[in-house]
Amino acid sequence: MSNNIKVIVAGPRGKMGTEALKLIEKEENLTLVACLDRKNGGKNVGEIDNLPNLDAPIFEDPEKCLSEIEADVLIDLTTPENGYKHTKLALEHGVRPVVGTTGFTPEQLEELKQLAEEKQIGAVIAPNFAVGAVLMMQFSKWAAKHFPDVEIIEKHHDQKLDAPSGTAIKTAELIREVRESHHQGHPNETENLTGARGADSDGMKIHSMRLPGLIAHQEVVFGGLGQTLTIKHDSHHRESFMSGVKLAAEKVMHLEVLVYGLEHLLD
Amino acid sequence: MSNNIKVIVAGPRGKMGTEALKLIEKEENLTLVACLDRKNGGKNVGEIDNLPNLDAPIFEDPEKCLSEIEADVLIDLTTPENGYKHTKLALEHGVRPVVGTTGFTPEQLEELKQLAEEKQIGAVIAPNFAVGAVLMMQFSKWAAKHFPDVEIIEKHHDQKLDAPSGTAIKTAELIREVRESHHQGHPNETENLTGARGADSDGMKIHSMRLPGLIAHQEVVFGGLGQTLTIKHDSHHRESFMSGVKLAAEKVMHLEVLVYGLEHLLD
Amino acid sequence: MSNNIKVIVAGPRGKMGTEALKLIEKEENLTLVACLDRKNGGKNVGEIDNLPNLDAPIFEDPEKCLSEIEADVLIDLTTPENGYKHTKLALEHGVRPVVGTTGFTPEQLEELKQLAEEKQIGAVIAPNFAVGAVLMMQFSKWAAKHFPDVEIIEKHHDQKLDAPSGTAIKTAELIREVRESHHQGHPNETENLTGARGADSDGMKIHSMRLPGLIAHQEVVFGGLGQTLTIKHDSHHRESFMSGVKLAAEKVMHLEVLVYGLEHLLD
Amino acid sequence: MSNNIKVIVAGPRGKMGTEALKLIEKEENLTLVACLDRKNGGKNVGEIDNLPNLDAPIFEDPEKCLSEIEADVLIDLTTPENGYKHTKLALEHGVRPVVGTTGFTPEQLEELKQLAEEKQIGAVIAPNFAVGAVLMMQFSKWAAKHFPDVEIIEKHHDQKLDAPSGTAIKTAELIREVRESHHQGHPNETENLTGARGADSDGMKIHSMRLPGLIAHQEVVFGGLGQTLTIKHDSHHRESFMSGVKLAAEKVMHLEVLVYGLEHLLD
Repeated sequence: MSNNIKVIVAGPRGKMGTEALKLIEKEENLTLVACLDRKNGGKNVGEIDNLPNLDAPIFEDPEKCLSEIEADVLIDLTTPENGYKHTKLALEHGVRPVVGTTGFTPEQLEELKQLAEEKQIGAVIAPNFAVGAVLMMQFSKWAAKHFPDVEIIEKHHDQKLDAPSGTAIKTAELIREVRESHHQGHPNETENLTGARGADSDGMKIHSMRLPGLIAHQEVVFGGLGQTLTIKHDSHHRESFMSGVKLAAEKVMHLEVLVYGLEHLLD
Repeated sequence: MSNNIKVIVAGPRGKMGTEALKLIEKEENLTLVACLDRKNGGKNVGEIDNLPNLDAPIFEDPEKCLSEIEADVLIDLTTPENGYKHTKLALEHGVRPVVGTTGFTPEQLEELKQLAEEKQIGAVIAPNFAVGAVLMMQFSKWAAKHFPDVEIIEKHHDQKLDAPSGTAIKTAELIREVRESHHQGHPNETENLTGARGADSDGMKIHSMRLPGLIAHQEVVFGGLGQTLTIKHDSHHRESFMSGVKLAAEKVMHLEVLVYGLEHLLD
Repeated sequence: MSNNIKVIVAGPRGKMGTEALKLIEKEENLTLVACLDRKNGGKNVGEIDNLPNLDAPIFEDPEKCLSEIEADVLIDLTTPENGYKHTKLALEHGVRPVVGTTGFTPEQLEELKQLAEEKQIGAVIAPNFAVGAVLMMQFSKWAAKHFPDVEIIEKHHDQKLDAPSGTAIKTAELIREVRESHHQGHPNETENLTGARGADSDGMKIHSMRLPGLIAHQEVVFGGLGQTLTIKHDSHHRESFMSGVKLAAEKVMHLEVLVYGLEHLLD
Repeated sequence: MSNNIKVIVAGPRGKMGTEALKLIEKEENLTLVACLDRKNGGKNVGEIDNLPNLDAPIFEDPEKCLSEIEADVLIDLTTPENGYKHTKLALEHGVRPVVGTTGFTPEQLEELKQLAEEKQIGAVIAPNFAVGAVLMMQFSKWAAKHFPDVEIIEKHHDQKLDAPSGTAIKTAELIREVRESHHQGHPNETENLTGARGADSDGMKIHSMRLPGLIAHQEVVFGGLGQTLTIKHDSHHRESFMSGVKLAAEKVMHLEVLVYGLEHLLD
């Protein structure tokens, strides 16, 4: 039935997997029917420490799990390697995959796309399930058509190793698809302190702030005559990804192809 | 030629009209061919104090102006009454109107729409030409589909008489089109000081800040699990409207119908 | 020794008490010597579930605890009633109290103040140990001398019951001490939607936003000719209080009187 | 009389000088008695285009002006060279100088300081008269004592040539006076795009944003456990400096020494 989606979760003990179980526990139209785990095969989810008290069997063997259990959707929050195998198996068993990963190769994606088409069942693969972040990027791409002068400032806790953040780089890439390349700022501007003007991405500037007390934030600022337009996303907990997982699990039931990227479900 | 649009400006001495003349002076693909004014008939624009030094005749009689002058576009920044008359006349003379007004009645709009269709020439009528503000409203409408909990805070200088601002009310109306009506905040919340939770619009809250030193600002804040998404527009000069006027003057050349609202030109 | 402060914590199983234990575990110059709890008397802290693995005895009887244990500081994070009793006992035993509470009566405070003076030992009682929030309030009081037009917007998660927040009300009170009372906004301003202009506190306006995804935030906005000045505090975890507790535990060692309010330690 | 301060303005046709005349026109306790200008000697202020309609003589010779006109305060908004000469002359004639400049050498300041002391009359010399900006810097210095992790982001219009702004550099200098030097961010952090982490000032980071539609803005962000504290100043018109000029003109009447920096008048 459309309002009772039977779900298998792969990777239940990971941070994201555990959030997915909490989501299923809370949502009436989602029911957990099994978990795929590297260990604990034969046990029940409710027996495992730190997992929600849900009644569903745990499998270590994906083939066995997908053969024995009648399911609608596989939510996979494991590694790219396992995710790829699980996704393929799921499609072959007529179970719709919802996969969170940035790690599939173009060849893998193409293969899975063809398999989904052949079997005529939906699949959703998304590098980012945070609906707010995905909307921020889509709005930014749209705004850049009309405001070609734009800078990004992203702010994270000071334990983060890379700068700029992956989201900032992805945002800049999306903007670049619609923005005519040009240098921003005064042609004769000078930095009295090196780095003041931030990183350059095709003439756009990106700034990375790192401080204790920050979590994960990004502002995209567009400037035009007499006005600025700012798109800002603040995220403070990985549960922010779960609204996207829920949306994907619901929408995938009505798809007959593989969709890559949550933005295509956010009309 | 498509890249030399001949423009008549109605209301050249008003604040917006003067900005429009400055725009035309600066933009290579726009050429001023005449002005419609309540006075100064027979003079030249360049003779008038505080107007840009442009060479174009001023008319007081709209009929005469549109008959004698060959023009592509009429930019009308006058009153609703005059704007309506000018728009009708322009359409009859095959000149494409670009009109900034909130004051036309539904009947007037319908009549003008039919006239444009009949004559098969484009027309743009827009209550708001600030591209940034229009995008903020469109993004807000989109975001509200996925984040039904939303509050608006608008901030203006302390000489403003009405609260909330027209833009805040318009934003709330657009959001209402897609947001399922529901009360926000805790069901048992109480105000220790009356008004703390702001104005209610179908369960959404709107807050109006008024301080010296502010100009015109609005933030639309969407909240979801573990995240918030904010769309912010800051405007500090009426030249912010001119990017929208320019866009409309260019797009109207390719239209064969009347378009109401700048948002329909911002794909 | 000044860099090894021996600490008793009262209320170790409460949210704040547990944070205090984590603080002591991390800080080299603080040592836990005992805990005061309503239960678990005779056990050791390390035995208790969900508490840091610290080696210190638990007492249920405050008198016994303070008599038997040699301590420098009592950090009390219990209720006003117990806190009052513990503070009095501590002063009598020559142990310096650091107490987080808003609940003492003026008479209780006066009594404790005289007792501290008599014994010539320091004590710190603070309604708020979040250094950032206390600085925000002090800066706001200072700024209001020069910018008498000010509005407060506080933003919290939508499970909060009261509006405005206690911090907003406290901020307004501090501002009132220095701000000449006057109505803000245009004298003829009108609300098209009731509540838009927020709550009134002596002419100042306070706005309360409530959304899922928010945690605890406040902005104090000052407006003047051609400029605004904003003081903003964002808090996302109760560990934000611990920097104030640490500061108080260190400073109280050099005090010979009772100090009420963390602001007096933040020079 | 203390509530009718007789003022000479030097540099009346400059941007700041004209704002000072507008200020005097508006304020009841300030009266213009003369102007010092490089030209227009012998004319009256009210005769000059684009100046407020005030009745006061214009002098080209400073010596003559200060000898013939009885004044309390000289507001000097000229160049460093002329400002230095005017300040010296004013002190010698018993007129209190209020000077806006960043250009005096330490030797000149020392000389003027001694002259003021000798004559026992007040003087105010300030690099920045924007009360909001000066408070932002003072608050930042204070906050840095308790939050040693801090980053500055300043945002200006894209016609600005230098980055970071003078105010950002000054803010960093003030913070450095109280902040123990240390590297911020993760020790192993890496920039995937050079410049992402901004300019380094003693371990603090400074970021400069430049976009059309921005005017002059700065945020100083302090991070600590579980919280951030932000001090923000937004300036959109040079009239923002006039509240500081007014304050200085009033306070200088009660001074008997030279004060350098508006912060010393902002208690």
